Amino acid sequence: MEVIRKAQLAKEVLSQWQNLESSRKNQVLNRMADLLLANTDDILQANAQDVLAAKDRGISTALLDRLTLTATRVQDMAAGLKDVALLPDPVGQVISGTVRPNGLRIENIRVPLGLVAMIYEARPNVTADAAGLCLKAGNGVILRGGSEAINSNKQIVSLLRQALEEESLSPEILQIIEDTSREQVQKLLRLNEYIDVIIPRGGAGLIKTVIENATVPVIQTGEGVCHIFIDESANHQMTLDIVDNAKTQRPGVCNAVETLLVHQKIAPEILPLLKERLQTKGVKLIGCEQTKGIVPDVELASEQDWSTEYLDLILAVKVVNSLDEAIKHINYYGTQHSEAILTESYTNAQRFLKEVDAAAVYVNASTRFTDGSQFGLGAEIGISTQKLHARGPMGLVELTTNKFIVYGNGHSRG
Amino acid sequence: MEVIRKAQLAKEVLSQWQNLESSRKNQVLNRMADLLLANTDDILQANAQDVLAAKDRGISTALLDRLTLTATRVQDMAAGLKDVALLPDPVGQVISGTVRPNGLRIENIRVPLGLVAMIYEARPNVTADAAGLCLKAGNGVILRGGSEAINSNKQIVSLLRQALEEESLSPEILQIIEDTSREQVQKLLRLNEYIDVIIPRGGAGLIKTVIENATVPVIQTGEGVCHIFIDESANHQMTLDIVDNAKTQRPGVCNAVETLLVHQKIAPEILPLLKERLQTKGVKLIGCEQTKGIVPDVELASEQDWSTEYLDLILAVKVVNSLDEAIKHINYYGTQHSEAILTESYTNAQRFLKEVDAAAVYVNASTRFTDGSQFGLGAEIGISTQKLHARGPMGLVELTTNKFIVYGNGHSRG
Repeated sequence: MEVIRKAQLAKEVLSQWQNLESSRKNQVLNRMADLLLANTDDILQANAQDVLAAKDRGISTALLDRLTLTATRVQDMAAGLKDVALLPDPVGQVISGTVRPNGLRIENIRVPLGLVAMIYEARPNVTADAAGLCLKAGNGVILRGGSEAINSNKQIVSLLRQALEEESLSPEILQIIEDTSREQVQKLLRLNEYIDVIIPRGGAGLIKTVIENATVPVIQTGEGVCHIFIDESANHQMTLDIVDNAKTQRPGVCNAVETLLVHQKIAPEILPLLKERLQTKGVKLIGCEQTKGIVPDVELASEQDWSTEYLDLILAVKVVNSLDEAIKHINYYGTQHSEAILTESYTNAQRFLKEVDAAAVYVNASTRFTDGSQFGLGAEIGISTQKLHARGPMGLVELTTNKFIVYGNGHSRG
Repeated sequence: MEVIRKAQLAKEVLSQWQNLESSRKNQVLNRMADLLLANTDDILQANAQDVLAAKDRGISTALLDRLTLTATRVQDMAAGLKDVALLPDPVGQVISGTVRPNGLRIENIRVPLGLVAMIYEARPNVTADAAGLCLKAGNGVILRGGSEAINSNKQIVSLLRQALEEESLSPEILQIIEDTSREQVQKLLRLNEYIDVIIPRGGAGLIKTVIENATVPVIQTGEGVCHIFIDESANHQMTLDIVDNAKTQRPGVCNAVETLLVHQKIAPEILPLLKERLQTKGVKLIGCEQTKGIVPDVELASEQDWSTEYLDLILAVKVVNSLDEAIKHINYYGTQHSEAILTESYTNAQRFLKEVDAAAVYVNASTRFTDGSQFGLGAEIGISTQKLHARGPMGLVELTTNKFIVYGNGHSRG
């Protein structure tokens, strides 16, 4: 099977790659960037085939937009690789160290995770981004992108592998699964013998399939039913600006707001203002009964709306009686991604930060900041919404694990 | 179903427990310890029932030893709870913090994992140990011990829950699954809605079942096919002492050595000495062809022996041609637990530390040190042999996750 064969090939050269000096890895990343730029035409030609086939099958405009590459997008991919080359290498960092009373010297250091498999959808830019981050952190990579982007992905990976060869390194450290059938993925998900971690990146359906079927450890990423709670004491102007930003600045991403919770005491004043502001941006509001009582001209929300990630210019609105109700709603319907409170109350801000269970919790700021570069971590491989290993934006450090190094001098345990 | 009902009960009171001050949690742990001591007779009576039933079913001596409680073992459980009360509380620790160029203040802090399920076998002391560590780290706990220990476990948990009530806290934060049927476990493994992490603790069979069936994130623990590589330049006396310690000091535990790899240049001198030393301790040697050529009076090893965790006074011995062969053997047959090299060579020591892929790698020390208290981490919940989340001994810190707290002042993303 292709996945087994390719995992074996990557595993065989893993030790060589893991022990490479940082400067050599950076040379490879820079050469990869140069080759992508120098061969932009080939990439765009391969991508044009994918786009044509996708149009024939009639995929949605949003998907088509994600699939389509342009010269600028190729430049962005190359710039991304060069940025990763500039980031500090986490491998070998000493996390902690101590000498025990018996003289045993113990260091806990960062080492690569090993072989990382990325499963993603029709965005060919993820191919270069994921390869760059995983390789920089000393990992082998198996990429399994969506079938819609297969020609683009093969072309990109072929150039990235060429860079490895030109730097006199084995290209086998980077693999792409060309057979995008269900059988290959199912096998990949259970290849514990070779693969250390699987990172799925995409919609809720993909994530669910991976979690339900994988025996290899998984880092769950992405789905974001994010809330903003407008507390009684929220500043009006700040509220309008932040809600607008969180919903409209880039509605198709996971940290965009999907549900607004509004304290009943501020709802009569703020909801008409919000409706006016958001209407000018083309946002459709869906509201609870109480919301409709204040701004009648909105669609009535169903139970389903409270757990929907619209990824679109749609916003669900619910009037709540208290901070308690808001926290309860978020902890029940949320996906533990990014949650914000807008308030002037010190006590309510502190309670919200403490009691809301999510990767990122905000006071008086847009949820859109949950992002590796915005948080100052550099590029990110995804945003973890699970609690194991890493939570929130995952950068290079989150693509490593630890190892205890113990220096003895004939030590036996008494 | 019992597991669903009990997970719901724990989840309902999780927020109360997570936000409790450390001093209150410590009071609870101390009271738990006192109640175990004060009710030692009840615990021993319940345990006697389990032991009787186990004897009737004819379980092995080793299992019976693990199952059996004594007044001293109850004292140890109580002392363990008091020790955990004294450990620093990781909850709320600021891991990192920064003010971004736009003025956004971001802190990454430690928070409890949430609801932790422990699945373990017939050792009733794990019941108190696991409850203490999980609760101290702010987590809810669902315990599912082996059916052989059910009466002991129920009695212990009943006392621990009594301590919660006496401290005016809900006992529902600590649950024990009384129906030890396969159906309940299977449901528990897929209860993602309520459970954040599952930690299996026990033999290879249990771990495998959990990994193959769980959709809840799992931390893999325990199995240890640990090696010692005796390099060409190893000190003879040190070699005899360390191998003896690693094999015989406590053969039934995961960090005991199971396979010896011996450099061919030192094998003719060291193997007869080792055989003599280990014979006096009742250790049975199983060797490769070359080993038999030097110390003929040993059983011939089969392929199966290289991946067997004996947990007994048995040691497999293989002569290797080089450090490379030793590293390759360990990375192929090992379980990424604890691996040691005995050498006077700086270069070989450094290569071994770097190239062997395991949670703990040693130079000139016994593998028996891989342990939370020996590493200075305090009590441990288990030893992780996977790369996600935590690797090696897991203490209180490893029972937490992180959360990004973001303080804005009307920040929108540009």
